[in-house]
Amino acid sequence: MKAVCLLSGGLDSATCLAWARQQGFEVYALSFDYGQRHRVELSAATRIAEALGAAAHRTAKIDLRVFGHSALTDDIDVPKGRDEAAMSADIPVTYVPARNTIFLSFALAWAEVLEADAIVIGVNALDYSGYPDCRPEFIEAFQTMANLATKTGVEGRTKVKIHTPLLKLSKADIVRLGAELNVPFGITHSCYDPDLTTGHPCGQCDSCILRARGFREAGVVDPTA
Amino acid sequence: MKAVCLLSGGLDSATCLAWARQQGFEVYALSFDYGQRHRVELSAATRIAEALGAAAHRTAKIDLRVFGHSALTDDIDVPKGRDEAAMSADIPVTYVPARNTIFLSFALAWAEVLEADAIVIGVNALDYSGYPDCRPEFIEAFQTMANLATKTGVEGRTKVKIHTPLLKLSKADIVRLGAELNVPFGITHSCYDPDLTTGHPCGQCDSCILRARGFREAGVVDPTA
Repeated sequence: MKAVCLLSGGLDSATCLAWARQQGFEVYALSFDYGQRHRVELSAATRIAEALGAAAHRTAKIDLRVFGHSALTDDIDVPKGRDEAAMSADIPVTYVPARNTIFLSFALAWAEVLEADAIVIGVNALDYSGYPDCRPEFIEAFQTMANLATKTGVEGRTKVKIHTPLLKLSKADIVRLGAELNVPFGITHSCYDPDLTTGHPCGQCDSCILRARGFREAGVVDPTA
Repeated sequence: MKAVCLLSGGLDSATCLAWARQQGFEVYALSFDYGQRHRVELSAATRIAEALGAAAHRTAKIDLRVFGHSALTDDIDVPKGRDEAAMSADIPVTYVPARNTIFLSFALAWAEVLEADAIVIGVNALDYSGYPDCRPEFIEAFQTMANLATKTGVEGRTKVKIHTPLLKLSKADIVRLGAELNVPFGITHSCYDPDLTTGHPCGQCDSCILRARGFREAGVVDPTA
């Protein structure tokens, strides 16, 4: 059994990779170099893939800056120090247009070459208030499309299933699951705006705030804090 | 009305662009630099976008070679001199895994930023014997997924429609339509394996053979022949 697992280098995708390994999948980890303002998360992805025993790890270069429109790839400031009401009030400026559609499309290409049975993606409940492409109905529609898109799917040889093990979990639940699966939290990276010299998280962006709260609620110490 | 139109630089996508202009769309042409073995088609795309009055033309760099498995991006030989039975007997080696899924995903990203109403893609009947991601059921499933993927789709502000004006046309029909729409055939490029010095088509690959037959059947002279 082979699975392509999307791996950003963060807590969520590292937990997905560990989950896929526990399920017995041979895991092919896929990261993207999409013009992020920092490379800290790509080097975290490389370390995580190795630590968790991925069969292979590839990084696909794509240029999402060609369409503009995101704080992760543009020069818009990453918002800091927001409470949850502010975070969920609207679609975050860190939204990248059609990002999960693009990422899953690449995963599908690799899955087809590998004749893989599964794609694993770490979308979760906290995200899908703000990101339309994190909702279960999106994932289901992508899976339907995916099995019409490939020769292996159409011939019925290998139908691909999209697994979303974190879909209904809170951040605290993800921390608990990661702890059970021995995810090396110390080498994961969640921050949108790290110190580019040291790689240390800012502690103030939405991602840092949600991570800190997740660890606190799960009663687990975050080794990166 | 805005449309993102996928533009490879070939006869089919040039005809799609001309069709979209005739329908009254402001056209945003999108090409891909995906590690093709030759750049002849990318320079054809640039000339076509300008000649047909696209509002903008972008080329997104993506690396499909990371997954291997195609004569268009690998070092497998492009088949030459095949008859139609041989062409349609199996999925061609020029097949790129999940290519249209990836291309449409990028088109969707740009459509979201532009709040475009439409995406135009030149899939057609001749292709969909061999390429699963050229079939109408694939296109419909992609459109359903696309409107769940984006904030404009979910909010109902701009539902995107995927237009496939060539879907049921033979190559001769496409040539006739292109002639009606004054497509500058002389600057289109269809060959999988052109002379890299002159840019001239090989005349022997599947794409050259189908193009020649299309012009012949339509009774139109191909200025590139």
